[in-house]
Amino acid sequence: MNGAESLVRTLVAGGVDVCFTNPGTSEMHFVAALDRVEGMRCVLGLFEGVVTGAADGYFRMKGTPASTLLHLGPGLANGLANLHNAKKARSGIVNIVGQHATYHIGFNAPLTSDIEGLARPMSDWVRTSPSAKAVAADGAAAIAAAKSAPPQIATLILPADTAWNEADGIAHVPGETQRPGYSADAVEKAAKILHAHGPETLVLMTAGALTEQALTFAQQIAGKTGCRVMGQTYHPRMARGAGRFSIDRIPYVIEQALPILKNYKHIVLVEANDPVAFFAYPNKPSQLKAEGTEVHRMTAWGENSAAALEALAGQLGAKAADVKPQPLAELIRPTGALNHTTIAQAIAYAIPENAIVVDESITTGRGFFPPTAAAKPHDWLQNMGGSIGFSTPVATGAAVACPDRKVMCLVGDGSAMYTIQSLWTQARENLNVVTVVFANRIYQILRGEFDGVGAGEPGQRAQDMLKIDRPTLDFVAMAKGMGVPARAVTSADELNVALAEANAEYGPRLIEVQM
Amino acid sequence: MNGAESLVRTLVAGGVDVCFTNPGTSEMHFVAALDRVEGMRCVLGLFEGVVTGAADGYFRMKGTPASTLLHLGPGLANGLANLHNAKKARSGIVNIVGQHATYHIGFNAPLTSDIEGLARPMSDWVRTSPSAKAVAADGAAAIAAAKSAPPQIATLILPADTAWNEADGIAHVPGETQRPGYSADAVEKAAKILHAHGPETLVLMTAGALTEQALTFAQQIAGKTGCRVMGQTYHPRMARGAGRFSIDRIPYVIEQALPILKNYKHIVLVEANDPVAFFAYPNKPSQLKAEGTEVHRMTAWGENSAAALEALAGQLGAKAADVKPQPLAELIRPTGALNHTTIAQAIAYAIPENAIVVDESITTGRGFFPPTAAAKPHDWLQNMGGSIGFSTPVATGAAVACPDRKVMCLVGDGSAMYTIQSLWTQARENLNVVTVVFANRIYQILRGEFDGVGAGEPGQRAQDMLKIDRPTLDFVAMAKGMGVPARAVTSADELNVALAEANAEYGPRLIEVQM
Repeated sequence: MNGAESLVRTLVAGGVDVCFTNPGTSEMHFVAALDRVEGMRCVLGLFEGVVTGAADGYFRMKGTPASTLLHLGPGLANGLANLHNAKKARSGIVNIVGQHATYHIGFNAPLTSDIEGLARPMSDWVRTSPSAKAVAADGAAAIAAAKSAPPQIATLILPADTAWNEADGIAHVPGETQRPGYSADAVEKAAKILHAHGPETLVLMTAGALTEQALTFAQQIAGKTGCRVMGQTYHPRMARGAGRFSIDRIPYVIEQALPILKNYKHIVLVEANDPVAFFAYPNKPSQLKAEGTEVHRMTAWGENSAAALEALAGQLGAKAADVKPQPLAELIRPTGALNHTTIAQAIAYAIPENAIVVDESITTGRGFFPPTAAAKPHDWLQNMGGSIGFSTPVATGAAVACPDRKVMCLVGDGSAMYTIQSLWTQARENLNVVTVVFANRIYQILRGEFDGVGAGEPGQRAQDMLKIDRPTLDFVAMAKGMGVPARAVTSADELNVALAEANAEYGPRLIEVQM
Repeated sequence: MNGAESLVRTLVAGGVDVCFTNPGTSEMHFVAALDRVEGMRCVLGLFEGVVTGAADGYFRMKGTPASTLLHLGPGLANGLANLHNAKKARSGIVNIVGQHATYHIGFNAPLTSDIEGLARPMSDWVRTSPSAKAVAADGAAAIAAAKSAPPQIATLILPADTAWNEADGIAHVPGETQRPGYSADAVEKAAKILHAHGPETLVLMTAGALTEQALTFAQQIAGKTGCRVMGQTYHPRMARGAGRFSIDRIPYVIEQALPILKNYKHIVLVEANDPVAFFAYPNKPSQLKAEGTEVHRMTAWGENSAAALEALAGQLGAKAADVKPQPLAELIRPTGALNHTTIAQAIAYAIPENAIVVDESITTGRGFFPPTAAAKPHDWLQNMGGSIGFSTPVATGAAVACPDRKVMCLVGDGSAMYTIQSLWTQARENLNVVTVVFANRIYQILRGEFDGVGAGEPGQRAQDMLKIDRPTLDFVAMAKGMGVPARAVTSADELNVALAEANAEYGPRLIEVQM
């Protein structure tokens, strides 16, 4: 057994049985090993940003890491933006990057670069395997890192000779997977604050606090104490829809966030970050909480927030009977012209039971949350790192993880173009993804940001850097080019029909919403 | 004048008057400054790999740097693969990357990452500007670095507050642009070797040795001394076609390179590298020269090789009369089925006078060199870093640099998919580029490499990682989706017609060659 085979066998034995790949020469022994090892599903991407984003989406839905296979420094580089997003979402990934044979690196062949240097900014764990005999143990260590609490981006760099030289066999992942806990002291402190200052307290949540079960406890706590429960602006995954506790998020726009946050003298953080602005703007604050607001952390990312919220509810004596009814928007099947309201209604109406919604709808989607709170139960996935080109790969990986669930990918036209190659992988693997592209022909968020930074009114040259209307992007043609059936819609009625059609069938579809 | 405007004015004053952009919020003041400053042409890309590759192509044809505008760490990350290629080609680029405001970085907002860490592996020069008053001088220093000999990738990181705070005005690029020289001693040594051992000597050239003029001197030297003149496997730019000295390149395949190189006891390097294999393979050497071969460097990259070759010819008494006639293949307008031979003939026949050929044709193009030596005079640009997705952006930038020349982008189907977004920029700017996609539906090079690394015969699962035939990529549809007229061809006759049509008109076209 060579090093590559020892690694593939170690991955499968360690429960890492999906590999998103875009391999090259230095990874050919890994590819060859796939023929000899049962149990590894390989999914090819035509661009590395698809590969790493898919691994992110896979982890978010499956809860266990997938691996990637990338070709040397530039292959890793192409995957870094979505590794950034995955790292900010604390998704576990075993990121495997080929490297020249150890003895070849010094000759500075064309593809030589500082792979460890490239990997470090977007990884939590980086190691170059020194020999074929070490590859299995290094792979097992990478799996352990990816599965730790919180999960990590573990980048294992594999010189070609460590893949083709003789190995000693497989390795097992060291130790038991950690069972995340929480601090009883922090829960007790949170209980005291909520008991004394309920209505003046904001419980700010993300990550593990947004499961259906954890939200139920939070809802009881809110009913009992009068506190406000909110989510931070973006979340890796959030249980939503009818029957679940619907919480508002901190608005992205600073002028909208500040008046909300100034109502609270205490903030209890449940995995969430102390709220900060996404960007800095001249003469606006970076921190969103009001001066004098006290911040208390109940759980850190990777701790067991559901258990902590249950314990908190227990200490406060909060029960199901304390839950206050939620006024939800009515589900409406819209008609007439497309606008932000009718689009939001059509999406909310169409979300199928148990769907996975991947949201990169940017400006078009700013109003999606209120109507979709009444939609059928679903999971909502967002971009944690702010790097554009997140949604189509994440939707791809989520669909690989959950073949029995419909994935709805909601994406702006500008965003869709960064990793448009995802569509091909969706067609190749017959993934159950409907991609809805909001074609407003502009980086509309940047038009807003242009105002936000106080840059005045854009002239012709500045507008040319914001508008993408010339030439018109035809997403129906591009989808067809990659094997995904597609149609364009120009009214709410057409959008309703297109969504119903897409949801009625299994497999990839694209809808271009011409706004 | 704010920092952003001081930088734009410094760039224009310093001769950097083209900016390839994919901006975000932190770059909005730079975008706004474009409206107030005359003389900067901004070209928008929908993906950052297009932006950096275009800057590479621009430099190769114009000889002076363009700038880029990228959005924080992930925007830079998306551009790194083509910065890698540009760095290996020693293209000068002023790479401008936005950053959070200095006081905002510590809050770890979603887009925060180690931008300097990301930049370093693919840059020669990295600086974060500390204040608005320093931005202009830092920009001037970046221009100087990009214009040095050899040219550099200069990455200037621009925190948002350095863009919006008040600056002191523009800065001028320090010092005169260096005029590259060469070592008279090295030329004298090369003359001695060639005088004594002409027929046993290989003169191995790249970069500045491949201008029409430099090649003429090399041809005289070969005629006078009986030495062999070759190019390394890949070159940033090479003057080719009828009337120019046609030289062979070191073959990519090791088994083909070794028998050639064992004929030479001396190698004189003219900017070229000591020949090494692109990849390592089990039981094959990394270094391609024969044991005992002596290597002498006449010029290093960035030195004046044309002047050095002229001086060398002078010392050897080599003259125009020493030039031996070159047997060139006849230009043939092929007919019948498409195969590697008829495709090569059709390309050679079609290359227009003074064309720029950007070559990422991979396996299909391995036979392109002999027939195109007889084509009309043209420049041939290759991938120096081996990172795929090079050609369509480089063709884009070359067309911006040389609007009066036809650009032919020759690209494999697998390669074309990495940065397919280039087509949109070509349509938007009406760039004179014909993209010829060789659609063999497989990463054919990897099928060869699978053999090369001794991995045996690929089974079904390995083949699935090499073949891209399922679903079929329809490049005509994708081109249409991005505003580029396109057609598919299935015979040599159709290819002839399509190339003639594309060359007869100004503007972007795509031809899918269905093999």
